[in-house]
Amino acid sequence: MDLTSKVKSDLEIAQEAKMKPIKDIATQLDIQEHELEPYGHYKAKLSLEIMNRLHTKKDGKVILVTAINPTAAGEGKSTVTVGLGQALNRLDKKAIIAMREPSLGPVMGIKGGAAGGGYSQVIPMEDINLHFTGDLHAITTANNALAALLDNHIHQGNALRIDTRKITWKRVLDMNDRALRQVVVGLGGPTQGVPREDGFDITVASEIMAIFCLATDTQDLKRRLARIVVAYNMDNEPVTVQDLGAEGALTLLLKDAIKPNLVQTLEHTPAIIHGGPFANIAHGCNSVIATKMAAKLGDYVVTEAGFGADLGAEKFLNIKARMADFTPEAVVVVATIRALKMHGGLAKDQLKEENVQALLGGIENLKKHTETIEAFGVPYVVAINRFITDTDAEGEALLSWCKEQGIPVALTEVWEKGGEGGLELAKTVLDVMEKETNQFAPLYDVSDSIASKAETIAKVVYGADGVEFSAKAQKQMKQFEQNGWDNLPICMAKTQYSLSDDQTKLGRPSGFTISIREFRPSIGAGFLVALTGSIMTMPGLPKQPAALKMDVDEDGKAVGIF
Amino acid sequence: MDLTSKVKSDLEIAQEAKMKPIKDIATQLDIQEHELEPYGHYKAKLSLEIMNRLHTKKDGKVILVTAINPTAAGEGKSTVTVGLGQALNRLDKKAIIAMREPSLGPVMGIKGGAAGGGYSQVIPMEDINLHFTGDLHAITTANNALAALLDNHIHQGNALRIDTRKITWKRVLDMNDRALRQVVVGLGGPTQGVPREDGFDITVASEIMAIFCLATDTQDLKRRLARIVVAYNMDNEPVTVQDLGAEGALTLLLKDAIKPNLVQTLEHTPAIIHGGPFANIAHGCNSVIATKMAAKLGDYVVTEAGFGADLGAEKFLNIKARMADFTPEAVVVVATIRALKMHGGLAKDQLKEENVQALLGGIENLKKHTETIEAFGVPYVVAINRFITDTDAEGEALLSWCKEQGIPVALTEVWEKGGEGGLELAKTVLDVMEKETNQFAPLYDVSDSIASKAETIAKVVYGADGVEFSAKAQKQMKQFEQNGWDNLPICMAKTQYSLSDDQTKLGRPSGFTISIREFRPSIGAGFLVALTGSIMTMPGLPKQPAALKMDVDEDGKAVGIF
Repeated sequence: MDLTSKVKSDLEIAQEAKMKPIKDIATQLDIQEHELEPYGHYKAKLSLEIMNRLHTKKDGKVILVTAINPTAAGEGKSTVTVGLGQALNRLDKKAIIAMREPSLGPVMGIKGGAAGGGYSQVIPMEDINLHFTGDLHAITTANNALAALLDNHIHQGNALRIDTRKITWKRVLDMNDRALRQVVVGLGGPTQGVPREDGFDITVASEIMAIFCLATDTQDLKRRLARIVVAYNMDNEPVTVQDLGAEGALTLLLKDAIKPNLVQTLEHTPAIIHGGPFANIAHGCNSVIATKMAAKLGDYVVTEAGFGADLGAEKFLNIKARMADFTPEAVVVVATIRALKMHGGLAKDQLKEENVQALLGGIENLKKHTETIEAFGVPYVVAINRFITDTDAEGEALLSWCKEQGIPVALTEVWEKGGEGGLELAKTVLDVMEKETNQFAPLYDVSDSIASKAETIAKVVYGADGVEFSAKAQKQMKQFEQNGWDNLPICMAKTQYSLSDDQTKLGRPSGFTISIREFRPSIGAGFLVALTGSIMTMPGLPKQPAALKMDVDEDGKAVGIF
Repeated sequence: MDLTSKVKSDLEIAQEAKMKPIKDIATQLDIQEHELEPYGHYKAKLSLEIMNRLHTKKDGKVILVTAINPTAAGEGKSTVTVGLGQALNRLDKKAIIAMREPSLGPVMGIKGGAAGGGYSQVIPMEDINLHFTGDLHAITTANNALAALLDNHIHQGNALRIDTRKITWKRVLDMNDRALRQVVVGLGGPTQGVPREDGFDITVASEIMAIFCLATDTQDLKRRLARIVVAYNMDNEPVTVQDLGAEGALTLLLKDAIKPNLVQTLEHTPAIIHGGPFANIAHGCNSVIATKMAAKLGDYVVTEAGFGADLGAEKFLNIKARMADFTPEAVVVVATIRALKMHGGLAKDQLKEENVQALLGGIENLKKHTETIEAFGVPYVVAINRFITDTDAEGEALLSWCKEQGIPVALTEVWEKGGEGGLELAKTVLDVMEKETNQFAPLYDVSDSIASKAETIAKVVYGADGVEFSAKAQKQMKQFEQNGWDNLPICMAKTQYSLSDDQTKLGRPSGFTISIREFRPSIGAGFLVALTGSIMTMPGLPKQPAALKMDVDEDGKAVGIF
């Protein structure tokens, strides 16, 4: 049966939903009236005072949803996250979903939002995918205020002796705007500033976004902002936000954005959507404040991290859980039969045909990710997110394989059936959390050398033979040690499509090394980014941008998102 | 008596105020629950459905507050606007204030916000002066989405044959960022776009801001956005947003921002704060939707327009009232003795000393503006906004002069005393509205020639002998006639400091001509901007930016705004 002709779009499903007033969702969570700051009737910000009130309450259990390496076939990680939360609530567990918030720029381009899909969505989806409660705008503003203060400092005499060839702070826009990747600013003569090469990133690539997502409260936010390195001076010494005196203003610009956002799913499961950094040049997880607040307000928190387990889960477990000092209780690794068949060598147009052999070939990708989670010591479940085109033989083959390997597995149909389609997964997750011992520990100590930390990730998580460092990277490692920056976790910037740093190597590649060509210090966020290839930090629009189909109808309703 | 040592800052006064929940303010106005979209507890957006519900209700009376040409001494136009609204409510008149919303960028630089001052402020002032409800962020996003779509169109093959040397659409940021005034974009080779000269304006200078403030509803917004001219093609024909197919997406990005924002004053008078275009390259008034909604919800609407009466009031009366088809019932012209003394030739450091002669010299500036309002046929009152340094002799001299001239006048002390300090003004305004005949009419017909319309403004409003058009301006007038753009009102971009186009000529200059060097068509907004000098559309930060004093205290409260 081919459903494609009659299925509704995500936006249609979302707009047909009968939402509960957000204050009713808040009441479910015993949130007090003064702690809820409504943004319209269906969105709200949550006061940080909640954390003080519930200071002594035991934390709920955090369940991380991750996935195999993404392919063009789609895995539905966000959809499973939402569906699992809905399913837990159907089992009378007090579950809260904690997700990243989408960036508006890519919505104008080609990609769908990060709000789930089908009958496992967070709503109001059009708001969440566009301006939402303005968090990304606040981050854009703080980022660009810092850039303006920096260039103004130079223009007004440059007391800090900043080397204008060594400015590392870029401006940002939440827009896919290719033409801004490389620019020259400050043209027009002495009253218009100091000419220099520059460039814009998309807002989610700003270090302020990473900081926003790792800060534990407003004062911690300010301390981290103060540490950001924006440039180097004529003696090659780092120049920070604190040197410019800008951390107070930046904190002020973020003081409301830092409050987590409450929305609901199609089944009225509470969802906290907050923060969304890149999963390559940053750590790819929603905010620590949101995760911790969700854990205070619920008994179970279902959260996710960007891209596959080699990037998102690795960083969630090595960076976020470590910095925020909590223990994840279970991991769900999402796979689809379609995607595994692509890892087994099929092209996208070959996926409709049954091909058990390709499936079993691609399954090695899934296997590697389960081994990674085992290395972290956290109980896990594989979730097979069903597609209408999957055949019975393929399903059987995959389930048999999991059973042979002793891997807990559950089928999900959350896109089509919402929480009902996630009940088997929810029960399996509850089961492993109850029966299995959690021995969570990060894979390396922060006191290990920079090279050693990178090698641990490459070998244990990617299955590489080792790491090669470019001459530049080697020089940087020495410099960072001198600057006292070597005691920080490593944030790997690697292609999401392969376990290796070559995006064409699908499945489970072996016999490869990882090449680190350069590091970028994110001292405010508190990690060192290791670049293994060229990472695009300002996307472009496609030939037919999604924006050209968007509209507002006569009733004021959004049309044409996705 | 010198109060400067003990007076509280505007922020301190605002933060000490006991605000009413915004839903209580809405209840005062009989706004229904579903028509109120709260943004936190003290701000809300108002649904456009209110206009349908109150379609047949008689409109309240619109009172415009304007001023003499601004000086460094300050006039307090926004403060009088708020104080007058509060005073009318003390007289049991159902009054609503309708003001522009501040731009965040200048708040980071040197200037105060546009939220009034002292005991005549709109609150929460720190929110209003920073992100507020995100309207400016939405306008920034729409503006820059259009820029990205435009550059992407060129990159993807340039089907519209756009001449990249003739792109008139610029990107914007709500930031004082000197280094972005003149830039080169699209560098880095063929995959990074097409190199070209470009520049950024501050968001309030975007034509989208002007459109936002003149649109009567969402569909009118879309029609206006579609008309924006973004570039010219190889045949020198205009290329519009409609040619790019982007008007739907831009409207979608603005669909929530277009709803007016409700806040309150320190005395709980309802205030609708919405939109804020430049008063030189645009028309400098709050949104038509906000003004019209305020007129439906209240019996009196107190509103203001940017800079002095030669710019703000002229455009309010010739552009906004004409396009939105309403009749203002009274105009208040604000002056201070200090500012008039500057118009009479004193420097700022000489203002503390009594100087009746300088006052009487500068009063000619006030006189010219009252003649302008008389030319429009609208009843008016002069408001003398009292300062602690004004002497009795100066006050007497000014009042005597007004009485001799038969000019209705009232003293106000709204900064110090709130609404109580505006009672005399409120009574005088009610009195002239009752007793005097309103013969309002715009000063020119839109069907007049472009040159004739500009000459009318220059002669009647500025007191000029005439207008000189540059060769470029003359060529443009011919071109605009061919494009069918000549039937639009003129929006003069002139210095705000002088009635002439020379900012050093204070008081009431005579024997001068106005030089129009260039026109800029704002076809979406629906007017032709006439540039009389170089108008700064991207401010810079000063040597000591205000941002460096801003902070968030331990309780999460804003510190150091102003």
